[in-house]
Amino acid sequence: MRDLNVGIIGFGTVGAGVVDWLAKSGDLIGRRTGVRPRVKRIADLDIATDRGVQVEEGVLTTDVKQVINDPEIEVAVELIGGTGAALDLILDCLEAGKPVVTANKALLAEHGDRIFEAAAAADRDVFYEASVGGGIPIIKAMREGLVGNRVNSVLGILNGTCNYILTRMQAEQASFEQVLAEAQRAGYAEADPGVDVDGLDTAHKASIVASLAYGEWFGMEPVYVEGIRGVSLQEITYAEKLGYRIKLLAVIRQEEKDVQIRVHPALVPADSMLGNVQGVFNGVLVNGDPVGDTMYYGQGAGRDATASAVIADLVDVGLNVVSGSPRRVAAFRPHEGYDKVLDIGDISSRYYLRLQLYNLPGVLAQVAGVLGELDISLASVTQQESEEAGEARGEEVPVVILTHQAKEKDMQAALVKLQELEAVAKPPVMIRIEDAG
Amino acid sequence: MRDLNVGIIGFGTVGAGVVDWLAKSGDLIGRRTGVRPRVKRIADLDIATDRGVQVEEGVLTTDVKQVINDPEIEVAVELIGGTGAALDLILDCLEAGKPVVTANKALLAEHGDRIFEAAAAADRDVFYEASVGGGIPIIKAMREGLVGNRVNSVLGILNGTCNYILTRMQAEQASFEQVLAEAQRAGYAEADPGVDVDGLDTAHKASIVASLAYGEWFGMEPVYVEGIRGVSLQEITYAEKLGYRIKLLAVIRQEEKDVQIRVHPALVPADSMLGNVQGVFNGVLVNGDPVGDTMYYGQGAGRDATASAVIADLVDVGLNVVSGSPRRVAAFRPHEGYDKVLDIGDISSRYYLRLQLYNLPGVLAQVAGVLGELDISLASVTQQESEEAGEARGEEVPVVILTHQAKEKDMQAALVKLQELEAVAKPPVMIRIEDAG
Repeated sequence: MRDLNVGIIGFGTVGAGVVDWLAKSGDLIGRRTGVRPRVKRIADLDIATDRGVQVEEGVLTTDVKQVINDPEIEVAVELIGGTGAALDLILDCLEAGKPVVTANKALLAEHGDRIFEAAAAADRDVFYEASVGGGIPIIKAMREGLVGNRVNSVLGILNGTCNYILTRMQAEQASFEQVLAEAQRAGYAEADPGVDVDGLDTAHKASIVASLAYGEWFGMEPVYVEGIRGVSLQEITYAEKLGYRIKLLAVIRQEEKDVQIRVHPALVPADSMLGNVQGVFNGVLVNGDPVGDTMYYGQGAGRDATASAVIADLVDVGLNVVSGSPRRVAAFRPHEGYDKVLDIGDISSRYYLRLQLYNLPGVLAQVAGVLGELDISLASVTQQESEEAGEARGEEVPVVILTHQAKEKDMQAALVKLQELEAVAKPPVMIRIEDAG
Repeated sequence: MRDLNVGIIGFGTVGAGVVDWLAKSGDLIGRRTGVRPRVKRIADLDIATDRGVQVEEGVLTTDVKQVINDPEIEVAVELIGGTGAALDLILDCLEAGKPVVTANKALLAEHGDRIFEAAAAADRDVFYEASVGGGIPIIKAMREGLVGNRVNSVLGILNGTCNYILTRMQAEQASFEQVLAEAQRAGYAEADPGVDVDGLDTAHKASIVASLAYGEWFGMEPVYVEGIRGVSLQEITYAEKLGYRIKLLAVIRQEEKDVQIRVHPALVPADSMLGNVQGVFNGVLVNGDPVGDTMYYGQGAGRDATASAVIADLVDVGLNVVSGSPRRVAAFRPHEGYDKVLDIGDISSRYYLRLQLYNLPGVLAQVAGVLGELDISLASVTQQESEEAGEARGEEVPVVILTHQAKEKDMQAALVKLQELEAVAKPPVMIRIEDAG
């Protein structure tokens, strides 16, 4: 057995988890693989706070150079997060000849190309299993386990906070605001929840997964993003009646020579694999040729699940160090030329529409007419019970329409026209449907 | 890009799939990884049958030595199956210095130790992703992605034929025999279905997974096996009413210093992740520390899905060849000492019991008494509608009991005693319950 000296930069929740689990399971890992990762140094500006784990004397330091410049440290783990100092630290580690393990999805999505260039120049590994799907080994699955596949699509529930909120809204028949407040109290949502609920975190992960699938490091610019603040309990209830659940979904899909990368709420069948990913769990459905559908499921965040992914990366790096095979699997290798990432207007989808209508009978024909003119055909029309008591002819009636496949730009045009109809009481609600879930 | 010369032994369905997909996607794989596997030779006794794929002249041979002894061939793929000639061929390949990729679960489960010994002696890789879960990269997940985890349990639906049959029995309200005959016509079941429906195939896979999880190559001797021939439509229907589905399940679990390895039909919650693995699909739920629950899902068999796994292994071998790191991850490395594999009598489980009772009121107290004396407590008792028309007092009434956790040997003793009761019309039916699904 050979020890691998690890330097950790950032001693927060995940850093403490890595220290904790390496102490508990380091020997087992050594027996399993021949490599036992050992924490030699931990750098953090705050080394006074008790993190609930034992650290030997001399391991903690406020000086990050004691990780970067210590020749005995064989791999650096970046866990400070964010896109500022973390970038320079990773580049410094690589320049100093140290492979890097990171969980930093925002940094990778936004500056992955710079990091991978530096990794190639230094001939060192950069691993980032923990950046997507927490403890789920999805990066390894996509890069190695499914390496022989052309990826047709990846559908992912990639943010545990959003999935927790949507699951609780349905279970408790509560509003977004109520459940968010409760999730914040329980520690499942940040005080500033925007990165999660507005979809940015999912978009970071979608960009990384799309890049691995299609061989271009896409960055954030071409990723279409909508969050879940606009998902009302009403939609969740109506979707449920129709056999669907609403999830914040990353949709990555090849369409001839183009690629879709989009993040938005979507209806998925309640009895599908993705429909059953509930609470804080994540799920990723990868469809490829020749493998067909495969799915990966687990906790997408949290101290322990994330530590599992970081430790797996440490072992991967360690095996490359021991066997003298750095970059045996490159951090990222461009491998395919796609024409473009499709603009959201150019995608096709099925749609859920909720309209609040007055004077139902005559109006439905008008609505169908507007949709028909734009080549949007109806799969089902359901009049729902009004939320307000005392529903009567002439008052608002909620009508839910599910469409067949249609062009997004046609749907957007239809939404504008529908809103102009006198009998449409409020702006229509539109949510995309993904039946492949 | 570097070509990797591949020799295939066995040109059946899977062999043809590997040839087909390497032809279609070899270039993409090369761009992704730097290694492009190319089929240099295919050995099979039958080289006359058209396999539906193009093969260049000089590639096909009936002489397996042209694979084993050709110094240009860098990796051999064993796809002839079975535990006879395949063993010698693999040992010959290793002795000749060739790494081996195999999908042969029966051979690995029964003779893995000999193969791994030979691989170590030759300092060559043996990879076997396709042996478990078809296209699902479950071996890689357990050996690499979850390498930092102590495995608490693995619950697996590992045989597509059985899962197809059980799914169709429920969907069509048909008997085992009816669905088996239909599955045989559709090509989802073999003419001789015993290896699948009697549980042996699942047991092979369970043994491999348990060995990876617990670090001893267990072989087949300690694996408890029951198949699905005894699962009647009646049980499927009653289970459904209680919120469960019946699956042929591999249950691998650590219990203090002991390990359980068992294969049998089990009730899993219908709304659980495993409960939603339907048709020919496989699913594996791994619970570990620190990762918690993770699940892996996909097609467990078939030409294309299996080819995906074989190709992933070829790339893994190829990367080791190119980077000069054979056995970077060993085929199998003993890593933990467990006291013993528990005898089935020593496990604990919840149980589903169906009793056919005469004279209900008095008898239920007797039944509860028998169970109570053996420390088996009842979670629920449900009188089901009799399958026979004209049910009346004094005729047989089916009663379904779900128990709390109890010792298997106590349950077995109870079954004997219950059968002795005069009012118990037929031998009781017992199926274990796995709520963690």
